[in-house]
Amino acid sequence: MIDYHRILERYRPTEDEERKLRRISRSIVQRINGICASRGLRAEAVIVGSYAKGTNLRDGDLDIFIAFDRDYPEDLVNTEGLRIGHAVLPEGREKYAEHPYVSGEVEGIKIDVVPCYKMRFGEKKISAVDRTLLHTEYVNQHLDDRGRDEVRLLKIFMKSIGVYGAEAKTFGFSGYLCELLVIRFGSFNDVIGYFSRAKGRVIIDEDDRFQDPMVLIDPVDPDRNVASPVGLESLSRMKIASKLFRSSPDERFFQIDHEKKNVQYHDRGTCITIYSLPRPDLTDDVIYPQVYRFRSVLQKIMEAHEIRVISSEIDVSDRIYVLVETATCAEDRIHVHTGPPVDTDNAVDFINSWKGRERSRGPYIVADRLYVDVFTAQRSIEDIVRQEIFNYSIGKNLDRFRKAMEITRFREGMDKMPILDKFFGADLFKL
Amino acid sequence: MIDYHRILERYRPTEDEERKLRRISRSIVQRINGICASRGLRAEAVIVGSYAKGTNLRDGDLDIFIAFDRDYPEDLVNTEGLRIGHAVLPEGREKYAEHPYVSGEVEGIKIDVVPCYKMRFGEKKISAVDRTLLHTEYVNQHLDDRGRDEVRLLKIFMKSIGVYGAEAKTFGFSGYLCELLVIRFGSFNDVIGYFSRAKGRVIIDEDDRFQDPMVLIDPVDPDRNVASPVGLESLSRMKIASKLFRSSPDERFFQIDHEKKNVQYHDRGTCITIYSLPRPDLTDDVIYPQVYRFRSVLQKIMEAHEIRVISSEIDVSDRIYVLVETATCAEDRIHVHTGPPVDTDNAVDFINSWKGRERSRGPYIVADRLYVDVFTAQRSIEDIVRQEIFNYSIGKNLDRFRKAMEITRFREGMDKMPILDKFFGADLFKL
Repeated sequence: MIDYHRILERYRPTEDEERKLRRISRSIVQRINGICASRGLRAEAVIVGSYAKGTNLRDGDLDIFIAFDRDYPEDLVNTEGLRIGHAVLPEGREKYAEHPYVSGEVEGIKIDVVPCYKMRFGEKKISAVDRTLLHTEYVNQHLDDRGRDEVRLLKIFMKSIGVYGAEAKTFGFSGYLCELLVIRFGSFNDVIGYFSRAKGRVIIDEDDRFQDPMVLIDPVDPDRNVASPVGLESLSRMKIASKLFRSSPDERFFQIDHEKKNVQYHDRGTCITIYSLPRPDLTDDVIYPQVYRFRSVLQKIMEAHEIRVISSEIDVSDRIYVLVETATCAEDRIHVHTGPPVDTDNAVDFINSWKGRERSRGPYIVADRLYVDVFTAQRSIEDIVRQEIFNYSIGKNLDRFRKAMEITRFREGMDKMPILDKFFGADLFKL
Repeated sequence: MIDYHRILERYRPTEDEERKLRRISRSIVQRINGICASRGLRAEAVIVGSYAKGTNLRDGDLDIFIAFDRDYPEDLVNTEGLRIGHAVLPEGREKYAEHPYVSGEVEGIKIDVVPCYKMRFGEKKISAVDRTLLHTEYVNQHLDDRGRDEVRLLKIFMKSIGVYGAEAKTFGFSGYLCELLVIRFGSFNDVIGYFSRAKGRVIIDEDDRFQDPMVLIDPVDPDRNVASPVGLESLSRMKIASKLFRSSPDERFFQIDHEKKNVQYHDRGTCITIYSLPRPDLTDDVIYPQVYRFRSVLQKIMEAHEIRVISSEIDVSDRIYVLVETATCAEDRIHVHTGPPVDTDNAVDFINSWKGRERSRGPYIVADRLYVDVFTAQRSIEDIVRQEIFNYSIGKNLDRFRKAMEITRFREGMDKMPILDKFFGADLFKL
């Protein structure tokens, strides 16, 4: 039997932390409201996020929105919002999601101050963050204290198996999605039961507009799939973890900080190369899609040279890393060069163009096409990638780093690297 | 300018040969008719084939059919046909196409004596060879002496580029198809012009029943595609040769016995293995389809072990040979072992079954599936094929030879082999 009570005790905020959050959030709300009043702004501070919904875990952050009356122009909301944010978070930095906002820290607690418009159920949202106000209301109307702890258990479980978070880094489950799942199914155990039995796409609400792996419609916005960030692999991970947990329940599924296993690297008789780029000062949500593109470009280059790709891994830490494992470390000495179909007008030109040129074999016919086997320079994988990376765009922000690309070839006994830990450590038994 | 007259002089039967063919064929016809009369059989000898149509090349053979009245039972036709065949060809051997027949030699000329039923235009054929009688009639009605020489030129051209012959060895153009092409288009040059411009499938007669690369309906049998044996590669070869010949006409296209080029073997930095089996005493038409199957089984085995196949070649001479060229000579040390999708009932069993077992990595998830990376024995290609060939059928007549399979790995400087000549000599410049 799992001692859920003990797990909650470990990860729920302590009473001290609760008092501190209450004190700080009230103080910021008061200061924001004071500024609004003194400047004659029809706006008010609202606490949102998991703290406002009572589903927060230990060491969480605070989200405070400044909700403006709906008739203010967007410019003013942005300008005044930032000004108030800087006033209450003097060390804060401006960040940008769909809107600019201010992010800072007070007594070690991370705080975001975000401007938005007031919004009631059924009203059209003006800015993308407005519906967050309604999420807070909706969850508080539908969850009691027991439900809040069920959400906490689900979040702990998801963090532990690595699927918590809707960002591009994880492609996982947002906090709000966890809350809606508990509201929908009743308890942590019911949610796990549901995922352990789920087959294929997880369609909690039928809606043909959404083709994502998982669909759950936002009760406060019928045009939005709350589960749209959930990627196929996170969903698969959630399914298999739910199955494993039900087949043998274990407290390891509630261990957020897994002790780092000492991963051993070994020779797989393959060619493992690691490509790294400087990491630009941008949010994960901007960087990750480009890192995936970088990986797929590397795979494409190798496949174009008929170097068989076995597997790959990515890591974003001090720099951007992509690992590609291939069967061999160089292109073949022979390349089968594909010519035109025999019945095209340039078939004869193709044959004549090879007259007297060095080649291994051909021109010859296979099916309806001409081919010639040519000798290649038999370049190493590193040389090929260095030359061809410039023929591909790997994304707006990463393209300029292509010339600064560093390449490391794995060999047994080399120093530890986080990406190699991820690669060699891939192991569902940690679940 | 090509001196067509000289080419014809070289390959048309000499007057001596014509006289000899006339003498021998008449003598056999008389003897057959004499036997039939003495045995009271309503049957008569008919000379068919290219000699009967006047489209024969030098050193050809003779085809003599014994045409029985249509009311005889098939058994009698077969028995009496063979008996007569043996009587006129005392050294002859029985062969079998759809029917049994007798094949022998007289004064160095190969002769087939084949029983069949009499048949007139529009009558239903009883045995598959019956329509041959009508082919002879049809061609003789539609070709004059000039046309006969145009057919000879076309045959010489096709022999020279290696596409003459409807057997499974060549998948090329039959003599009758050559005759029909000249009848249809008028001359050798018109046929070449047609093929040099042809795109995609060559549909001379529209007929949805036939999906072969080339379609030309038999004028004496509307249910038959005379071009059905023509394979895609022979057709491609005919197209490109026609294009090349028109772009620069050359007598090399009429050189039936190409002087054997001294093909040089060289190291392609690849792994070339040659698999050979004893050759059973069967006709090419029976053997070749099984040899192609043998090749595709070998390719399948290698691909199943993720050994990249680059090219292949076959040769049937003293034995059956299949050459397969691969990028490497052994399987990779790592095999990515595919498990079940995460949402199947045995996903948990799969994970549990790997607990504590030796592996390189995993179980892990990619998309919606489980995988484990395992170490292989890293067997050589030869060991893999020797073990796995028994899991595949390579055809009724070849299966029993699998244990007698011999494997040779190519290395520079090794003795000449016809299959290596074919492989390294693949070169359209010989056209």
